[in-house]
This record gives sequence, C-alpha cells and structure tokens, in this order.
Amino acid sequence: MNTTSSLAFQPVLERIAEEIERTPGRGRAADYIPALAACDPRSFGMAVAELDGTVYGVGDWREPFSTQSITKVFTLALDLAREGDELWEHVGREPSGNPFNSLVQLEYENGIPRNPFINAGALVVTDRLHSRTGDAAGELLSFLRAESGNPALDFDEEVAASESAHGDRNAALAHFMAAYDNIDNDIPVLLDQYFRQCSIRASCADLALATTFLARHGIRADGTRLLTLSQAKQINAIMLTCGTYDAAGDFAYRVGLPGKSGVGGGVIAVVPGRCTLCVWGPGLDERGNSVAGVAALDRFTTLTGLSVF
Amino acid sequence: MNTTSSLAFQPVLERIAEEIERTPGRGRAADYIPALAACDPRSFGMAVAELDGTVYGVGDWREPFSTQSITKVFTLALDLAREGDELWEHVGREPSGNPFNSLVQLEYENGIPRNPFINAGALVVTDRLHSRTGDAAGELLSFLRAESGNPALDFDEEVAASESAHGDRNAALAHFMAAYDNIDNDIPVLLDQYFRQCSIRASCADLALATTFLARHGIRADGTRLLTLSQAKQINAIMLTCGTYDAAGDFAYRVGLPGKSGVGGGVIAVVPGRCTLCVWGPGLDERGNSVAGVAALDRFTTLTGLSVF
Amino acid sequence: MNTTSSLAFQPVLERIAEEIERTPGRGRAADYIPALAACDPRSFGMAVAELDGTVYGVGDWREPFSTQSITKVFTLALDLAREGDELWEHVGREPSGNPFNSLVQLEYENGIPRNPFINAGALVVTDRLHSRTGDAAGELLSFLRAESGNPALDFDEEVAASESAHGDRNAALAHFMAAYDNIDNDIPVLLDQYFRQCSIRASCADLALATTFLARHGIRADGTRLLTLSQAKQINAIMLTCGTYDAAGDFAYRVGLPGKSGVGGGVIAVVPGRCTLCVWGPGLDERGNSVAGVAALDRFTTLTGLSVF
Amino acid sequence: MNTTSSLAFQPVLERIAEEIERTPGRGRAADYIPALAACDPRSFGMAVAELDGTVYGVGDWREPFSTQSITKVFTLALDLAREGDELWEHVGREPSGNPFNSLVQLEYENGIPRNPFINAGALVVTDRLHSRTGDAAGELLSFLRAESGNPALDFDEEVAASESAHGDRNAALAHFMAAYDNIDNDIPVLLDQYFRQCSIRASCADLALATTFLARHGIRADGTRLLTLSQAKQINAIMLTCGTYDAAGDFAYRVGLPGKSGVGGGVIAVVPGRCTLCVWGPGLDERGNSVAGVAALDRFTTLTGLSVF
Repeated sequence: MNTTSSLAFQPVLERIAEEIERTPGRGRAADYIPALAACDPRSFGMAVAELDGTVYGVGDWREPFSTQSITKVFTLALDLAREGDELWEHVGREPSGNPFNSLVQLEYENGIPRNPFINAGALVVTDRLHSRTGDAAGELLSFLRAESGNPALDFDEEVAASESAHGDRNAALAHFMAAYDNIDNDIPVLLDQYFRQCSIRASCADLALATTFLARHGIRADGTRLLTLSQAKQINAIMLTCGTYDAAGDFAYRVGLPGKSGVGGGVIAVVPGRCTLCVWGPGLDERGNSVAGVAALDRFTTLTGLSVF
Repeated sequence: MNTTSSLAFQPVLERIAEEIERTPGRGRAADYIPALAACDPRSFGMAVAELDGTVYGVGDWREPFSTQSITKVFTLALDLAREGDELWEHVGREPSGNPFNSLVQLEYENGIPRNPFINAGALVVTDRLHSRTGDAAGELLSFLRAESGNPALDFDEEVAASESAHGDRNAALAHFMAAYDNIDNDIPVLLDQYFRQCSIRASCADLALATTFLARHGIRADGTRLLTLSQAKQINAIMLTCGTYDAAGDFAYRVGLPGKSGVGGGVIAVVPGRCTLCVWGPGLDERGNSVAGVAALDRFTTLTGLSVF
Repeated sequence: MNTTSSLAFQPVLERIAEEIERTPGRGRAADYIPALAACDPRSFGMAVAELDGTVYGVGDWREPFSTQSITKVFTLALDLAREGDELWEHVGREPSGNPFNSLVQLEYENGIPRNPFINAGALVVTDRLHSRTGDAAGELLSFLRAESGNPALDFDEEVAASESAHGDRNAALAHFMAAYDNIDNDIPVLLDQYFRQCSIRASCADLALATTFLARHGIRADGTRLLTLSQAKQINAIMLTCGTYDAAGDFAYRVGLPGKSGVGGGVIAVVPGRCTLCVWGPGLDERGNSVAGVAALDRFTTLTGLSVF
Repeated sequence: MNTTSSLAFQPVLERIAEEIERTPGRGRAADYIPALAACDPRSFGMAVAELDGTVYGVGDWREPFSTQSITKVFTLALDLAREGDELWEHVGREPSGNPFNSLVQLEYENGIPRNPFINAGALVVTDRLHSRTGDAAGELLSFLRAESGNPALDFDEEVAASESAHGDRNAALAHFMAAYDNIDNDIPVLLDQYFRQCSIRASCADLALATTFLARHGIRADGTRLLTLSQAKQINAIMLTCGTYDAAGDFAYRVGLPGKSGVGGGVIAVVPGRCTLCVWGPGLDERGNSVAGVAALDRFTTLTGLSVF
C-alpha cells in the first residue's frame, strides 16, 4: 500500500463524480420491494471520512438511502464485541462461493453459515445479539446514531414491512438453522429484528463516519474501545473476502479494500489506519453490487494509491 | 498497513524460529505419496527477500522441498503475461467455498473453474500456457531459475511419477473440463505437464526471491516487466482470497497478506512494495496448510505490523 | 406376477408372524418425538384386506399406531381426485435420489418437489387440498373413517403438537417453496394441517381397508369412483418408485409391490386388482423404514407369488 | 396385472404402428455422434417375443439400430450371474434423481454409483465383468448372439470410435471412481470395452429375443439358468425404477413395465412370466427416451392390460 501523506480528498471525489456522471449505463435498481425500485438509478453520492471525523463529500452524499446489507458489518461488530470468539462456533469466516441465498452449502455444513455476510450468517449474528441485548435492532440504531453523530437516523417501517412480505427465503434459512439448533429466538421475532435493521436509512456521510471505528482499529468516535485490534482486523479481513456477495474476488482486485455492499446501492470501504469511504448509486450489477459504487471505489484507489495490493 | 521504514528482518526471523521451535504439535505431513510422507514434520525454514534481492533466512531456509501448489502462482503469472484478460473467460477469480478438489461447483458452472488456485483452475492455466509455449513445465522451470538465481532448481521426476500414479482425481477434472471444451491439449500430455510443475524442488530462499516480481508490481529480477501493474494486483488479490484452499478467510485474518500454500508444507507471501516471504514446515493442518508456516507468518505480521488490515 | 386363484391368507399371515417373532433385531423406534419413542419395538401386526372388504390379521393388527407419512398417499388421492393433472405442475413424479428432507434438489429445481412423498411434496399436496376444501386434515380424516368403516379414527393432538415443536425443517421447506410461489396458504396454517394429518392413529386393519380403493383401481368402499383408472395407476406407480424414502429400489426388488412407509413403523402395500396389506413394527432401519414391516412384506410376496416381477 | 390368456399380439402391434404413423412430432435423434444423427426420426419398429421364442413384429422390426444403453441390462445380468451380491458393494440399486451423467451424487456417495444404469454404474459393472472374463465386450456379444439366435450381431467400430472421441465425461467418471478405488482396470482399456458394448447393432426382433431370459425368471434360450429367480427379479426391479434416466417415474406410470432405453432410440420392456418387447424410434424426448418407443409401450399396456399396476 502506497500512502500519500497529505491527500486532498475533495478534488479526488469531484473528479470521480465527473467521471461517473459521464459513464453511460448504471445497472438496475433492486425491484423486489417498491421502496428500492423507486430509486433513481442516476443518483450518486460519495463521502470520505478521516480518522478524526472530518468528512468530504460529493453529489448526493447527504441524502439518506436504504442501508440494507451494509448493516451486517455493524451488527457483527456489536455482537463480536460482546461475545468474542464464541461467535465463530456458530458462523464461519470463509467465502461462500455460491449465490448469497443458497441453502445447499448450509445443509452440507450442518447449519453453520459460511460467514456473517451471507443472509444466513447475518441471521445468526442478529439472533445472538438479540439474545444478549433484548433489542438487536435498537442496539444497532443507537450505535449508528452515536458514531455518525446523526440522531435522526431511523428505521424505515415501510421498507421493513415490504421485506417481511417477501421474507420467505430468509424465513426458510432461519427455520433451517433452527433445525440444527443454531438459532435461539422465535423465528418471527428474529425476522422482525433482522428486517428492521436492514431498513435503516442513512447517507454516505453517516455511513462513512459510522465505519471509522474499523479504520481506527476498534476505537469508537468517543474514544472508547469497541473491538480489540485483533477483532477489528478480523472484520476487515471478512469484508475483503466476503463483503460483496459472489464478486469478492473481483472487488479485491479492482478496489483492493475491505468493503461491504447492500442492495440499496450503498458500498462502504475501509482504508485501515487512514480513512473510510461510502458510495451510493442505486443501479446494481447482476451480482447485486452498485455499479457506480464499485466503479467509484476502483477510481479512488487508482487515483490515490490507497489500495491494499 | 503500518510500515516500519528500516526493519531489521533477521532478528525477527530468529525470534519466530525460536517460538516455533517451542511449539508442540505441528500437524502431519501429506502422506498420499511417499516422497512427501518421508519429510520430517519438525523441519522449519523461513526466508524474507527484499525488493533488491537481499535475502534473510533462518532454520532450514536453504533446504529444497517440494513446491507443489505454490507453483500455481508462477504458472498463472506466465500465462497471464502472455494472453492477458482472455484467460478470465476460461477460469474465474472467485473463492471456491468448497474443498479444493470438489467437482460440484465445476459442474454447476459448466466447466469453468472458480479460480486458478483450485486444481481444476490450475489445470486450465497449465493447459493454456502449454498451448502457447509448447512446454509449460519448461517455461516455469526457466522462470524460477532466473528469478531465484539458482540454476540448480529442477523437477523431481520421482515425485512427478508418484503424483501421476495417484492422479485419478486430476484426470477426472481434466476430462470433465474437456467435455465442456475448456481443455485444449491431450489429457495425458496435460497431466504430465501439471505433475512435473508441482514436482519442482526449491528452498525458502529460492521461492522468496522468485516471488519478488509480485512485490515489485510485475518487474522481474532483471528489471524487465513481466506483468502490468494491474495484472500484479490481480494475482495478489487472488492469492489473498483463494490462496490457502478453504482457509483463505482465516489466513486473511491471521496473516493479512496475499499468500499461497502447497501440500509440501511451503507457504509464500507478498508484502506489496516491500518484500516477500517463504516459510516451510511439512506438517499440515486438516485443510492442507502448513501449521508452522501459517503460525510463522502470523507472528511475522504481528511483530512487524506488515499486514494489510 | 403369478396369481394363486384361491389363496388362504390367514395361514400365510400366521407363518410370517411366527418367523418375525423368531427374528432377532428389529431396528429402533423413531425417537425425535416422545410418543414415537415410547413404542415397543417388538410390537408386530399385519393385515390383508380383500377387494370386498374381508380382512385377515395377525398379532397387533387391531392396535392403533401413528400413521405418519402413510397418510401422504391418501392426501395425494384426495387432491388428485379434485384437481387432476394440474397438480403435476406443482410437484413431480420422479424419485428423489436423496435423503427425504434434502433441500438441495428443491433449490436446483426451483421449488418444485420431486414427488408427493418427500416432505416438500407432501406439503405442496396438503397446501393445494387445503385451498380446495378449507380443511385438508378434516377431509383426510373423513375419508379414512369412511373407507375403514371405523368412526373412532382421530387425530392425536399430542403427537401433532410434538411434531410442530420439532417442525423447523418442514417450516424451512414450506417457506422455501413459498419463495418460489409454490405454496398458497399461510405457513403456520399449512404446517398445522400437515402435522395433524400425520398424527392420525389407525390400526393395520383400518389402513389395509382404507387402501383398497387403490387395489380396486379407484373405486371407494361404497362403490363410488374416487379416481380414474389412470389416476389409480399413477399413485401405485409413485408408491413403487418413491414410497420408501431412499430405499425404493431395494423395496421394489425385495417386495415388488407399490408401498408406502411411515416413521411410526407402518407400511401399506397394494396388490392391484387383488388385495392390500398393512404391516406395523415400530423398529426402523437407518433409512426410516420398518424393519419387521419390510421383512414381512418380503415374505408375503415370496410365499404367495403376489409380486409384480 | 390383468392377463389375457390367449392374446393375439400381431393385430395389437399393427394397430399401434398405425397410430404412431399418424402421430406428428417424434422428437430429435441424438446428434452427438454422426452415426446416430444420421437416423431417420420417422423410422419405427416394434417386436414382441413370447417365452417360447415366437416373435411378432411390425414396421422396421428387423432393421438393426445402435443398442447403446440397452446393453447395460445384459452386462449387468452377465456380471451378476458371475459374482452375485458382491456386486452391490460397488454399485447401488436406488434411483439417481439427477440427470444421468451427474458427478455430484457420485462425490456425495464416495464413488459408489447409485445404480447400474447410470453411466457411472454401467462403467463399474463393465469393469468388474472385464476383470472376471478378460473380455467384457466379447462376452456380451456372444450372449446377445446366442439369445437372439442371430450370429450376425456385431460391434459397430465406427460408432465405438465416435463415442470414444466424445468420451470425456465417461473418462471423467471412470477416473473419479478410480480415485475412490472403485475401478480395477486401466481407464483406456475400460472405456474401449464400454464404448464397444454400446456400439452393438441389433434389431427389435434380436433384442426382444435376447431379453426373454428376464421374462423367464433367469432361464436362457437353451434352457440353462443364467440368473436365480431372485436375481432376475432384482434386474426387473432396477429396470422399473431406474431404466429410463430421469423419467423412470413417468415411465412406471405410463407403461408400468420394467424397461430400459438407449439414445439410439430403442426401448426394451419385460412382462414377467409372459413376454418381452422391443420398440425402436430414433427421435428422443428431452430426457433421452424414444418418443415413439414410450408411446408405443404405453399403448401396448393399455390395449392388452399387460401392466404391473
């Protein structure tokens, strides 16, 4: 990794935004629920947050969008902080090598999901956090508000209800793992917790700030330690190898940073010890990642040299 | 990544060797062929090579061992240098999420292996390099001799013959992909090429040196360019996400460097822009990676801060 | 098939019962719910019903037991009678070639179960019958009472509750198929219907009589037609190829009759145009079929020549 | 099974031939090798052989065609006659529930094919027969000549060579099973034996006659016993449950007889204790069975009542 000691992020962001603006074709917004389908696929925002909380942004960087799977990173951090390595007896840390909802591998491996970022794994993490806190979704929301400094962050109950109405695959996953004794809570309770987490709306600025604890190796915005250095590395490593569905290898090559995407079109990324990023563009590629988001991160690491490889 | 500007590698290596020496339990050497089973599982060597070719070492770092799957990295580089992105139409870049020999995913994905480091993928790369050069194994050997500066490197014909005698799974993979038109050469010719490559014997010093072109972003020892910057990044990314069989996630977390292991007990790793490493310890864990090798790399990145995350 | 024109069934049954009595080892009763685990694995009953409703029996042939998956045959008949071939767009007629609960094949084939006798398929049939009648379990119970002439047949609510408490795999299957739009009813409603059906208690005599409509090519006990000749053949064929979990090939060879087993230890069988049989022995083999039940049917077809092959 | 004591087969065959003649659409001939692709899809022949060797026929019933997978039945009989139940430790007797060439199930079940009629299973049977006789293909040819009374039957070396040139999937299967120690002979030797067997040309009359030993419960044309009664039943049962690729359930329902199809467009069927049939029509459905062949057998059992169910 080549670090440029005093980078001016703002001109970089503006250059990227111009390039993205000129790029034809941005994929299609997710259409399985109305709230996502309604997004303008030409929306684009990008933010960089430095370790001290300074944020730079461009485009729609202050507009809230549906965070969806991006929240899996924070739920993982919150549970890992509480229970430590015991978590890894209930969910693995290896890439899945299959489309993100597949039940096959889950059956082959006796109800232990491959990693915390496939849906099955995220359900397990939520289940465990809920058992420890009594309100997994509330814990997550409090954390995001505190780290982003934005008390207005909230659930989108309409999105949560839509997800629930299309929630049969997740219900199947949850019941399937319950059959292997890998789920503690009642399934409807768990699913409600899960869908509410995914429904949280936040902007690029909010998410870039909320992610900085990973760039600070586990230290929260208020200076307290959430994760050990080792745990922070653990999460970054999982983001790099498993953060973008079945395109993690591609993302590792093109972007070369730990990252996590969501079907709402957001992508977060971490430059350990340096800064965090969040990009939003609702149009997705066929593997469920934001077309503009991955392109913008690709350009960012190329322009700044802030890549792992 | 925290870089220490003037690291003294030798004391670090010696400290690691002492720690490994005191560690009980080192796994079991591969026993499917006699030459590997005969290795002393207590052997241990480690070398670091800087970009300028300076090498530091400890223990059995000058003793040749069977490189096995480590050669997949070099074959990939040699073919990628020749045909460029066309290669990616014949082999993917995503983690496999399954034990390294599995046929399931290969069938599901119509004969296109997930990545160049599972056996199926390495067979495709060898096949393509052989079609382009007429002697894939010879090309590889020449390259390793040149980069390591060691003209004594050679095939181990006894090991190659042993592999061939136990080669039914690889033969099945090759025929299976041929049925999908993803293999060009005759299968016996291809298998001979493949097993001879895996049989090459080299020491930690040799392999650390031979890997430096990846730390130099594609530049060979003689200063000529083998790979574009982008291709070098590509290979590093694939090493990080797919280099250690079904333990890539674990390796990414513990070591945090692009790496590639072989069942001969060797592991190579790359610190982009800085140095390369090779460790050898014949005892393997249940996923086929060197127990001492992964432990030593783990300690190295912890002691030096030379990790990606 | 060699038919013996005037068979005396009673002596055959008594000879079989004696042989079974002398046989050591009868497998283990299902133990996933208490009511099944409490069964004496040495219980044994067997009944033969002729087309005119004459019944012969031996041992515990009048003792009620938990019918479990045997009811899948009757639910299939009731739904097929109502909707005809349209059913086959929602469930297949081919053997599954996998343990009976596997999700793999269901995913591979887009939520269409392979046949009506694996759990996924039986859930689809129950779902469709329930949509057509508003009370699938009630329809089934009425049918069994009418055909057996035993108005005392009833659900075992304790067993239904136990099944429900261990119902996560079936819930997973149902939600999974719902995600493919292959389930109409709410999942809790469907599961309640399904578990109540499986809980019905009936004796060998009851079940042999209730099955005679299949030996009469679709004609019920009261002389009315439930199924067309073609539909009756359809069900017999599915019983032969899919009626005994992953042992259908073995059953076809040993018994050579259309049959269906349940984990309660019952097995029914059909000699088309001639008679029906029901055997009960709670001890199961490793594939979930009654050890004594299959052995008794094997002896019956050997002694009488009433086999298909 | 309703048996009609003195059936006049000839008028039945003629009626069926007329109906088939009027049927539009007959599927497509296999086109993976030239010799099969060259067949006229409108060809049609059908023969019935009684237990005493009397043969009735219609259409192209005396024209030789490529027997292909039909030979699997005879090879199985020849090996089972020699080694008995030991064979079942190397190949199963259960339906495969997957397209006939799938490697997945083979991996899941450690190299033991599900049944002798999928390609993997047939390779195992051929391998074992070859080990016992030194010339599996020669044994098969002698048997077919003797049973059909036609000394002109022979291999079609051109077809065998074509199969061999497209034999990568079968080579993959053979090597894969060899890796599980379930193949004894050298793979090229085994494949040569296998492809030569499949290449034998015979007419409907020849094959109906050659199959009569199964209708006679194991007795050959010369009155000697090849199989025990039990072994003959075993083969009939496997034909019913596994004889028509992934359409065995459908075939059982429509035809209701033990049968075996080949991609050359032939289908044989057995009415135990009564007669045998062979139909030929080169046009195949999407599951690889002769469209006209299955339709003709369907009509035959409907018209004569000679069905199992």
